Amino acid sequence: MAALTFELQATDGASAARAGTITTDHGQIQTPIFMPVGTVGSVKAVTQQQLKNDIKAQIILGNTYHLYLRPGTPVLEMAGGLHKFNGWNGPILTDSGGYQVFSLAENRKLTEQGALFQSHIDGSRHMFTPESVMDIQRSIGADIIMAFDECPPYPSEYKYARQSMDLTHRWLDRCFARLAETPDKYGYTQNLFPIIQGSTYKDLRTASAQYIASKNAAGNAIGGLSVGEPEEMMYEFTALCCENLPQDKPRYLMGVGTPWNILEGIALGIDMFDCVMPTRNGRNGMLFTTGGVVNIRNKKWATDFSPIDAGLPSEHSQYYTRAYLRHLFVANEILALQLASIHNLSFYLWLVGEARKHIQAGDYASWKNGIIPVLKQRL
Amino acid sequence: MAALTFELQATDGASAARAGTITTDHGQIQTPIFMPVGTVGSVKAVTQQQLKNDIKAQIILGNTYHLYLRPGTPVLEMAGGLHKFNGWNGPILTDSGGYQVFSLAENRKLTEQGALFQSHIDGSRHMFTPESVMDIQRSIGADIIMAFDECPPYPSEYKYARQSMDLTHRWLDRCFARLAETPDKYGYTQNLFPIIQGSTYKDLRTASAQYIASKNAAGNAIGGLSVGEPEEMMYEFTALCCENLPQDKPRYLMGVGTPWNILEGIALGIDMFDCVMPTRNGRNGMLFTTGGVVNIRNKKWATDFSPIDAGLPSEHSQYYTRAYLRHLFVANEILALQLASIHNLSFYLWLVGEARKHIQAGDYASWKNGIIPVLKQRL
Repeated sequence: MAALTFELQATDGASAARAGTITTDHGQIQTPIFMPVGTVGSVKAVTQQQLKNDIKAQIILGNTYHLYLRPGTPVLEMAGGLHKFNGWNGPILTDSGGYQVFSLAENRKLTEQGALFQSHIDGSRHMFTPESVMDIQRSIGADIIMAFDECPPYPSEYKYARQSMDLTHRWLDRCFARLAETPDKYGYTQNLFPIIQGSTYKDLRTASAQYIASKNAAGNAIGGLSVGEPEEMMYEFTALCCENLPQDKPRYLMGVGTPWNILEGIALGIDMFDCVMPTRNGRNGMLFTTGGVVNIRNKKWATDFSPIDAGLPSEHSQYYTRAYLRHLFVANEILALQLASIHNLSFYLWLVGEARKHIQAGDYASWKNGIIPVLKQRL
Repeated sequence: MAALTFELQATDGASAARAGTITTDHGQIQTPIFMPVGTVGSVKAVTQQQLKNDIKAQIILGNTYHLYLRPGTPVLEMAGGLHKFNGWNGPILTDSGGYQVFSLAENRKLTEQGALFQSHIDGSRHMFTPESVMDIQRSIGADIIMAFDECPPYPSEYKYARQSMDLTHRWLDRCFARLAETPDKYGYTQNLFPIIQGSTYKDLRTASAQYIASKNAAGNAIGGLSVGEPEEMMYEFTALCCENLPQDKPRYLMGVGTPWNILEGIALGIDMFDCVMPTRNGRNGMLFTTGGVVNIRNKKWATDFSPIDAGLPSEHSQYYTRAYLRHLFVANEILALQLASIHNLSFYLWLVGEARKHIQAGDYASWKNGIIPVLKQRL
């Protein structure tokens, strides 16, 4: 088995967009790619069969914080890793848990050593360190392991942002050291992606990107964006990070975002995205479609017997009507959550696939500028 | 298009079990059959694709009370009927709503004319009459329309049971009269099944069965059982009804039941069953399997990496493990509800399919007596 590789196949003339192929021991990923979020080992309301056959997901996420608490690493180890446990046979990336410790857990305390916290489920006390988080991700069996970082909120004072970035860098060194002294767990290669921090300060972001790039990792990530800052600022700092990252490694913009955020991110040179938005917003009745944004609970859809999204080549989105899906939401039927999740994820995967085609065709920037106003409109 | 027909293909030597084929304008149904319940137009937590391809359902139920309130008959008529609205292309049977008026609605008032009630959703006032309920089921577009009846509780006084039965019979005459004067709604035949009542009094049940049989309907149903009476009493009255019903018409035992209830019902000559148990109990973590009953939330399954049901030839039940499904329930993941519902329904459909094979092979009674203790055991 071999370390993750990235083959760059096409670049767009009028933007920094790239098309490539990531190869992992669990298969290939055509980039740019959106990765559905399977926080607790399940992409919410979606079966593995639907993920593969209908949504056409190529890689999914798991979350270290959640999986460590439930079902716990002993169970995952006995299963032979998350792939065996949940039946997803493609590549898996695990978030390091740092973000969740600071957004979900209680009584957090940060030290040089790591992060003390209490479980949001039962109040039990735990400590995450760069070393323990590497061990947990090894036990989960991720193909792509994310570094343990601190994600400062927006806005952050310069002094805090700098101290936090320095801590994240020291933690990164410990992550690499721990992985070097522990073997791959289940016979396939587990690859560490470091994470750029530095809040919204150009000198810090540049320094962090250069530090992360110097590690020559299999891939690199941008963290600490899409945390409340204006969209234009997110794009500006994404561009700054990309300029300081190697061309020949995949770039992952963490936690982003709306369909237009993703298209703009691609234009800036991002290859990988994840976000809970398609599933979470879907469960609230918000659909992203090829014609714009739909609030399917709206009474206007009650007798609209056209497909959920006539423009999307996805079985479920073609098969079920807006009137039926609206009825399911109004009647609080579980099937509403399923169909909305399948639709939104199918749309996200279709969208990055279209982006890839246009990068290969050389007209990405103009295609993106034409489609974004359509996708953004409220139907 | 033609009225529903029933072809009797095999009978069991040692019991009253029968195997047959029901033909409707939306396709054939191999009996004995279990019909998944799609109360509000969706079999809860299951897509139409899964119903057809994985569960192998042949006919599903809708409920007049629920569909009348949401989405309402005007929407269903604009859609072209429930088949078009929910995308289920096979046969659909609709319950008449009588049972729901008395179990769900508020401020019910029963008169000779019909039933006045307030919606359990918004308190709005409505009246169901035999005529209006026939009209609603026509609008829903059911292949099989159930008569509007009153279902007396168990136990009921003799006098009340008799008056209720007489009312149900008078209402039945009005149902037939209404259907005779209204055309099929969407170009296919809609068939009325009358319902035997009479509570747990032999003379009343016999009289009701004979009255219903005299109508020479396309099929006949037994109502008012499985409402709290002892199982042996349910079997006794099921047998009594079957003895008084024609051999050449399908017999439907309403709202039954556990896997063993169904197998005993088949032995007594029942051809059709429906029950919310596989989906409702599934959502609570109770699985019916080929090896017995599983409470999947139990800690004992936390590290059981065997399939949900190794004995069941169903993709999902083979693909996912008990440990994973338990984890999904403990973590409150929606996928838990989906997988448990798909499994339990697949099991019910498999079970009636096996029953059919054994009736055709001529060893139904001995097979049933052997398998029931296995299915009943708690794992």
